[in-house]
Amino acid sequence: LPPHSVDEQLTYLKKGFAEIIREEDLRSRLEQAEAAGRPLRVKAGFDPTAPDLHLGHTVLLRKMKHFQDLGHRVIFLIGDTTGLIGDPTGRNITRPPMTRGEIERNAETYKTQVFKILDPAKTEVRFNSEWMGPMRFEDVVRLCGKYTVARILERDEFSKRYREGTPISLHELLYPMVQAYDSVALGCDVELGGTDQKFNLLVGREIQRDYGQEPQIVATVPILEGLDGIEKMSKSKGNYIGITETPADMYRKLMNMPDHLIWRYFELLTDLSIEEIERMKIACMDLREAKRDLAKRIVTDFHSAQEAERVESSWGQAPPVESLEHHTITDPRLNRALVQAKFAPSVTEADKLIKAANTVGVTRVETGEECALTGPAQRLEPGEYIVRVGKKYKHVAV
Amino acid sequence: LPPHSVDEQLTYLKKGFAEIIREEDLRSRLEQAEAAGRPLRVKAGFDPTAPDLHLGHTVLLRKMKHFQDLGHRVIFLIGDTTGLIGDPTGRNITRPPMTRGEIERNAETYKTQVFKILDPAKTEVRFNSEWMGPMRFEDVVRLCGKYTVARILERDEFSKRYREGTPISLHELLYPMVQAYDSVALGCDVELGGTDQKFNLLVGREIQRDYGQEPQIVATVPILEGLDGIEKMSKSKGNYIGITETPADMYRKLMNMPDHLIWRYFELLTDLSIEEIERMKIACMDLREAKRDLAKRIVTDFHSAQEAERVESSWGQAPPVESLEHHTITDPRLNRALVQAKFAPSVTEADKLIKAANTVGVTRVETGEECALTGPAQRLEPGEYIVRVGKKYKHVAV
Repeated sequence: LPPHSVDEQLTYLKKGFAEIIREEDLRSRLEQAEAAGRPLRVKAGFDPTAPDLHLGHTVLLRKMKHFQDLGHRVIFLIGDTTGLIGDPTGRNITRPPMTRGEIERNAETYKTQVFKILDPAKTEVRFNSEWMGPMRFEDVVRLCGKYTVARILERDEFSKRYREGTPISLHELLYPMVQAYDSVALGCDVELGGTDQKFNLLVGREIQRDYGQEPQIVATVPILEGLDGIEKMSKSKGNYIGITETPADMYRKLMNMPDHLIWRYFELLTDLSIEEIERMKIACMDLREAKRDLAKRIVTDFHSAQEAERVESSWGQAPPVESLEHHTITDPRLNRALVQAKFAPSVTEADKLIKAANTVGVTRVETGEECALTGPAQRLEPGEYIVRVGKKYKHVAV
Repeated sequence: LPPHSVDEQLTYLKKGFAEIIREEDLRSRLEQAEAAGRPLRVKAGFDPTAPDLHLGHTVLLRKMKHFQDLGHRVIFLIGDTTGLIGDPTGRNITRPPMTRGEIERNAETYKTQVFKILDPAKTEVRFNSEWMGPMRFEDVVRLCGKYTVARILERDEFSKRYREGTPISLHELLYPMVQAYDSVALGCDVELGGTDQKFNLLVGREIQRDYGQEPQIVATVPILEGLDGIEKMSKSKGNYIGITETPADMYRKLMNMPDHLIWRYFELLTDLSIEEIERMKIACMDLREAKRDLAKRIVTDFHSAQEAERVESSWGQAPPVESLEHHTITDPRLNRALVQAKFAPSVTEADKLIKAANTVGVTRVETGEECALTGPAQRLEPGEYIVRVGKKYKHVAV
């Protein structure tokens, strides 16, 4: 990449952050780095748990990539110290201490996933046990001496729990200190995280100052809405696209998402600049076109341009009606129709399929249009349909 | 010493404690120890600072001794870990980290002082750096996982500071955990301390339970009133008797203390049992006799019976009037008299001498009785006096 002016860098980097503390500091740090001919050191921390990343996680990874695009050094920090400890209260039996082997395996899985976005050559993968492991009691006391209880309890989550009388175990107060000390150990210029991490990231600034370092710039990425357009994208909500999903599944899920998410996804899930996105918005005559463009870009990112072409060109092309199993339906309610077409053994099972995101698709044969699905008891108008459940298609006449 | 029944032990041990948590537990622990043929392990913790012990400190040491008298094992624990760290906030410049050498020297000074009361053969002197030094971050987290923030902040001192917004540094929360863990490391049956230590001692019970140990019995000693009879005995208040003071100074200070302290001091500063003290109270016709007995016992404890005899027999014997410098006074106010007798250069200085504890003594020559001093402007009745300031006597006629 050609060298970029500080202004250009700033414009590129600013996109997609919820907050930068503070933008003027980021500017002067970029100037310093340029003057010194050194890259910025940009950290983001990750749990050592088994990763199964979805697009929600890529918002942060993409901002890491943007720093790399400009030649900066990105540190992918795995917070293995806490994983090695497990739950010290012993209350959470689902959180036993991890072994070094498990953590290594999880790290490998992380790498195969995050290197779909990050450039391995510009990424430092580090484990905080490197400096936390040798730390002794006296070092912990010295670190904790730099912060007050009141400041820690100011954190929203803690103050709420403290007010409500929900126990806060003493060790939990140590964790923000660890995250802060990680920045000292790594000499970070910038730390990235979700908006929910803002407090911890800010502690880093104060602790760095205490250790004689310039406080890091803190930049938070927003939480990505899931495919339902309402809730945060998460695996447990089923409103997600995993980054290892097939091109066809990715494409289909994106094409079926609500229209109001399109530009948001462009902002948070592509490398397009704000100006480019604004220009597209103005030029856009058909949101389905924009959605198609977005879906193609995302499939290209996680698979390839060829895969994206292939999936795009076959999109909407259901198998020929003649080749499909045929059912004539007497009850027009969608869930009953699924039972009668032998997609489901019972109405209850049919209801589950319909409620699951993107599992059921209904296309009118005459028009080729996909029907908007509103719920299990939705009535299909008389006519012929191609009904899809997962990857299975059937021809249904009502 | 002949073996004592659990009842006898309990009666002897109970004396002089402000609180025992709980007495029935102490009884059953004594029974267990007797059944197992093992002594109890009894801990008291001390700061690694340079000690200059006074009678106030001996209340605790004497209770330690009482456990030794009954054959139990006493652990004199020096909390050197915190001393080695100093003030991690860097705010308190008068608390730099101590060196190992300083701590060793302080420990030696402790020994020469505390072994005036404790039996060296039954005393284990330990340093908590032994187990805190090798402790690593993960061990600290495990320890802290066993306690909640709310519990720690319940402690009077912390809750007051938290309410008032006086900063509590995070590392301060670690110290009660250390003291508690000391009990685990040492396998304590009993921990002794001042009433102001009650919270920390109780944390020990909970942490021991978490580590699978029977919780220690906690026993607190009251704060000893100083020679003014009002405030806590302390060096800074000048109302103390240091345990290395001369027999004459100890005797004099005790003979001049307020009468209402006599039985309190018998309880907290001698090995007499409650019954013995009660019998003395009933038999006592003259408080000066009781005071003389107390003073003699304390001098015997810290010096010897011979020294005590010697100081007692010479007590009240001011030098012969003929040998003293003579002054005739025109102003009967005590402070003016001191100036006129050339004890003080100014009334202000005379006031200071009179206000200082035990510095000025006035004895009527005719009766040999010491006058009760009420304040700097007290008027001396016409007559002859031997006036003492410190160790200097003069003959004064009003």
